[in-house]
Amino acid sequence: MTKFDKLNSEELEQEIQNILNKYNEKDSIYKLSEAYDKGADSKIIEKELKRLLTPYKEGSIGLAQINPIAGDIEYNAKKVVKYINHAQNIGLDVVVFPELVLMGYPIEDTIDRHPIIVEENIKWLKEIAKITTSTTAMVGFVEPRKYDNLTGKKYYNAVAILSDGKIQGIVRKSLLPTYSEFNDYRYIEPSPVIGTQPAETLENFDSDKIQKSTKTSLINGKKYGISICEDCWNNKEFFNDTTLYSIDPIDELSKENPDVFLNCSASPTRAKKEQLKHNMLSFIAKRYSTPIVYVNQVGAIDNSSFDGSSRVFDKNGKLLARAKSFKEQFLIVNPHKNLGKIYPLTKGLEKTLTEAKVYTLEYEPDLERTYKTIIQGIKDYFKKTGFKRAVLGLSGGLDSTVCAVLLADALGAENVFGISMPSKITSKESKSDAEQLANNLKIHFTEASIKNMVEVTNNCLTSLFSEVEKKWDGRYKQSFTMDNIQARSRAMFLWGISNEFGSCLPIATSDKSELYMGYATINGDMSGGFAPIADVPKTKLFALARWMNSNREDKNAIPEAIILKKPGAELAIDPKTGKPLVAEDALMPYEFLDEVIWRIENKKEHYFDMLHSKFLYEQKNEVSQEQKAEWLDKFYRRMSTALYKWSILPPSVIVDSKSINKYDYKQPITSSRINYKGLPVEEIRNKIKEFI
Amino acid sequence: MTKFDKLNSEELEQEIQNILNKYNEKDSIYKLSEAYDKGADSKIIEKELKRLLTPYKEGSIGLAQINPIAGDIEYNAKKVVKYINHAQNIGLDVVVFPELVLMGYPIEDTIDRHPIIVEENIKWLKEIAKITTSTTAMVGFVEPRKYDNLTGKKYYNAVAILSDGKIQGIVRKSLLPTYSEFNDYRYIEPSPVIGTQPAETLENFDSDKIQKSTKTSLINGKKYGISICEDCWNNKEFFNDTTLYSIDPIDELSKENPDVFLNCSASPTRAKKEQLKHNMLSFIAKRYSTPIVYVNQVGAIDNSSFDGSSRVFDKNGKLLARAKSFKEQFLIVNPHKNLGKIYPLTKGLEKTLTEAKVYTLEYEPDLERTYKTIIQGIKDYFKKTGFKRAVLGLSGGLDSTVCAVLLADALGAENVFGISMPSKITSKESKSDAEQLANNLKIHFTEASIKNMVEVTNNCLTSLFSEVEKKWDGRYKQSFTMDNIQARSRAMFLWGISNEFGSCLPIATSDKSELYMGYATINGDMSGGFAPIADVPKTKLFALARWMNSNREDKNAIPEAIILKKPGAELAIDPKTGKPLVAEDALMPYEFLDEVIWRIENKKEHYFDMLHSKFLYEQKNEVSQEQKAEWLDKFYRRMSTALYKWSILPPSVIVDSKSINKYDYKQPITSSRINYKGLPVEEIRNKIKEFI
Repeated sequence: MTKFDKLNSEELEQEIQNILNKYNEKDSIYKLSEAYDKGADSKIIEKELKRLLTPYKEGSIGLAQINPIAGDIEYNAKKVVKYINHAQNIGLDVVVFPELVLMGYPIEDTIDRHPIIVEENIKWLKEIAKITTSTTAMVGFVEPRKYDNLTGKKYYNAVAILSDGKIQGIVRKSLLPTYSEFNDYRYIEPSPVIGTQPAETLENFDSDKIQKSTKTSLINGKKYGISICEDCWNNKEFFNDTTLYSIDPIDELSKENPDVFLNCSASPTRAKKEQLKHNMLSFIAKRYSTPIVYVNQVGAIDNSSFDGSSRVFDKNGKLLARAKSFKEQFLIVNPHKNLGKIYPLTKGLEKTLTEAKVYTLEYEPDLERTYKTIIQGIKDYFKKTGFKRAVLGLSGGLDSTVCAVLLADALGAENVFGISMPSKITSKESKSDAEQLANNLKIHFTEASIKNMVEVTNNCLTSLFSEVEKKWDGRYKQSFTMDNIQARSRAMFLWGISNEFGSCLPIATSDKSELYMGYATINGDMSGGFAPIADVPKTKLFALARWMNSNREDKNAIPEAIILKKPGAELAIDPKTGKPLVAEDALMPYEFLDEVIWRIENKKEHYFDMLHSKFLYEQKNEVSQEQKAEWLDKFYRRMSTALYKWSILPPSVIVDSKSINKYDYKQPITSSRINYKGLPVEEIRNKIKEFI
Repeated sequence: MTKFDKLNSEELEQEIQNILNKYNEKDSIYKLSEAYDKGADSKIIEKELKRLLTPYKEGSIGLAQINPIAGDIEYNAKKVVKYINHAQNIGLDVVVFPELVLMGYPIEDTIDRHPIIVEENIKWLKEIAKITTSTTAMVGFVEPRKYDNLTGKKYYNAVAILSDGKIQGIVRKSLLPTYSEFNDYRYIEPSPVIGTQPAETLENFDSDKIQKSTKTSLINGKKYGISICEDCWNNKEFFNDTTLYSIDPIDELSKENPDVFLNCSASPTRAKKEQLKHNMLSFIAKRYSTPIVYVNQVGAIDNSSFDGSSRVFDKNGKLLARAKSFKEQFLIVNPHKNLGKIYPLTKGLEKTLTEAKVYTLEYEPDLERTYKTIIQGIKDYFKKTGFKRAVLGLSGGLDSTVCAVLLADALGAENVFGISMPSKITSKESKSDAEQLANNLKIHFTEASIKNMVEVTNNCLTSLFSEVEKKWDGRYKQSFTMDNIQARSRAMFLWGISNEFGSCLPIATSDKSELYMGYATINGDMSGGFAPIADVPKTKLFALARWMNSNREDKNAIPEAIILKKPGAELAIDPKTGKPLVAEDALMPYEFLDEVIWRIENKKEHYFDMLHSKFLYEQKNEVSQEQKAEWLDKFYRRMSTALYKWSILPPSVIVDSKSINKYDYKQPITSSRINYKGLPVEEIRNKIKEFI
């Protein structure tokens, strides 16, 4: 791989010549553009690109897929300025940025508590407008609405159209996603009109005096129908007449026969979403015989990981171009002149695009996406909060193992410290597996026994408990107190290292299956600065471990023994076997458990639906109806008491189509008495009679 | 106080006779109704009430101010049935329940992940309809919309009008609060029409075929204009033309000249909200010369505490009736015949009602409301999650002291265990103050030293740190590690007791001022099952402590020494004084800090606004501009790094007009790089030049 950022002018000229000799015109454009992305920020490349792009100029578009920091306007503006300048230098007609690019999406309630950042984004926008020349830039920002006599929320989610040193027009978002991780309607007013409004309406848009101008923007002879994210997700035909909003901005825009649709987006990746997005955008382009250009944000903001993969479909609905996933990129296209390049999706995902929407729990096609989603989530959380290093407990079990691999890949092995913290229950194998893993990953490793600490804590608590028992009844005959002390002692060590060494965060290693069951210790394994695998169920973790062993550059970093052993917290001895308790015995088979989660999240099934469906687990194992009912009852019971734990879970990456992340799913903790089985009408009738 | 639930029939008859002899007709009605509320659930009382109410029958209304459990439909339905039956027995025309009463408000995303509860609430509703006779009941429920070919969200927030064994009509909510703690628009579709629609529209309301029926409901000769909560919060005149929504359901309803407005609400208490609510409802009644009946939910659901105080204003805007605050009550009124009783607000609040909206940080009028809001928050969180007892560390400082008093009052002294957990830094005074407090409160108390545990942990960590130091640089010369170990050891004890003894939750004692500053230890003092004072700033806690000493039945339970000492965590020794570090020296004066919080939350001021305003603190103390700027800088810096701590804060009661509770205020943790000072345009221009 050529280190473009290391070349001097002469070497770069030579490298460019090599590219031009080796590749045709189109391929050369992409090779040079990749060189630019790799840091060859040079007039030389831009001059050459401009020459190559001359035949494609009319209708050419740069998709600036960037990774913003929420609220850091200067940081975001710097990227915007860089790409506007680049687009101008290579002579593009248009450069498009993701939704709300100056602010970073989502900005949430921050814009209300810190109104200064709204003023600031307007100041920056106006100054950025001044540096534009003939290339038109579409720049997302938060627009304050008139403050007096205001009906509705205080802001619009808007895109400014900039060129020739001025703001030329404003597009405002009409459809406001307010579900899952999206909270647009908290501060944003839906725009009552679609498409481009005149520049004079900036901060002064009066919906009672709507300008009867055209809705499309004319730029260098082409008509652009511009919309923002959710605005293009409401096609009644595609969604079989089941849509969230009553208007369809794309359909409205189509009435002016635009030459191209542009959509500025910030759309996070989730399981199955790629299939939906790909097919929907293709459908729209074909339906209106109009190419669509979709520019997506990349990077993670807290729990949401945006995958980029900006793309263009031609007027036949055929994919013409697609940017890289999980990487910043400047992608040049011309949908009118068939100029585009399709960078690959994460492996496995491509084959799901044409898949019918059938019942499937198959993890394989989603593993690379899962891996990259989490890697980006870790990387950006650390970078954007100013942390560099992670410390975690290595138990020799699956959860901490997978976390260690992900952290090593996201932060660099030298920035990860794995600590084996054996107790008297910890087996020799657990310790050696942990050490082997650390050696394979080349992360730092040490061992620190918690034995003394647990012993002292036990002593302290034993006398404390007998004091408490003098006043209070209700002491459990069998409790998890001593088990939890082990987990909490370990967390004490990890937080200690985080307090003592700069830029270091401890990691919570809880997985999704165990969080659903509340099988995680408060202030113990579920405590940390970040929880990388909180949205990955156990059976998927096994698949991910195997996938990483096959697909990482260093093969088989995870010792096979770790993948083969049955998960267990090694906190207690099973009296029946005399060996550490196995989690599946305390809970239920993970394969069954994960299918319950999957059915609830993806199929909205409830208790009796599941009781009467045949699980994959049942195809392989004999399960009586009594056993199944017992597991389902245990599931619902444990889930309802786990709600509190979900509420204090550290930030984590949302991966699945649904999650228990508190910014994605909200359920009152005090709603734990839901009757998940419901009641027959006859019984309701009898109860009402009794109530009178 | 007569123990009405203990009387036999004869005694009750006698007691009723005493009441009738002593009081006039109206007062007798309320005395008997209070007796009913106190448990005298007897045909005898109902018969007498019916007789007394005969002259008031036409237009009579029962306000059933109840405390539901979110998601527990059977529990809620039982209360609904009880009050419908009671209203029928005493011959009222109408009985009204709070918003979404069958489900409990808010139910949040629960209705999507557990669709069974929506089916269940419909089944219950239909069966409840069957027991109604001549009294009309208004019962809130979640209405599923048609599932095929659906535009919009899946549900309406609705009220069913029930009488004569049938559903007579449906009212659906149009204005959906989606800000602060409200998330209505996540699952609820705004109703496109106002007022009552025919019963046939139940689960089959097609907004394209809206019935041209009247919007009001005619019941026993009176026209009722019915709306749901936010629907009545949009009067353009009252809000000086600055409203959140473009339609005003009350104004629409007024066109049919209803005899009375009814509003089913679930509106939590917050500072200053009573003033707004009182004046707004009074304004509406007067503006339309129509009485308004407002029925509010009572009780807490997680972080939201609903204050009840249901009320009626007559057509002149004069308060005719008001139910108790923070108590379940069945309040009988007749706005046409001047029948009503005004129960008091919490003390102090009444005098704020006519107060101009001026700048004030005065706590006094808000202290009883603050106290009762938190008491209800604790009580309901414990009750609704099935916990009974609390354990907390008693440091002899203000935070744990105030928490202990609140817990004793909410749960009963016998259900509170205070543990003094001295370290080697803890002073003799701290220990004796803690013990004195526990004795005064009659809560359980014991002492458990953390010295051994801290020592062993220190030893373990010392050797662990030297291992880590071999691989990693960046070890702090001065760290808070050892301070935090003390706080974490204490939390370990408290969670241990919670694990070991049934129905027991540990308490997080962090206050609002310190949470803003991130001056709270993760897995330490900010860890617990509930955080009672997380929305009370330190200076208000001092005022609350004094208020409790004067106003609780047992006076002066809090030793004066605790109120007089300067707050400090007693985790470290100040090298300058040789005494435990005082928090204000590490942070800034609390009086100044709390005013910064107040100005940001209530006046939306930013850095320079504050730098150039005169603080109350500055009226009493000399503060240089440099010093003030330093404090403000420290405030913003610390606040931005405290965001993570806010995200893992346990459930707490929202008390103030704004809070940092994560269900109320959402800011990405990765947005910590906000430039709170902003930049002058000239500087922005220069930076843009550099970026190119």
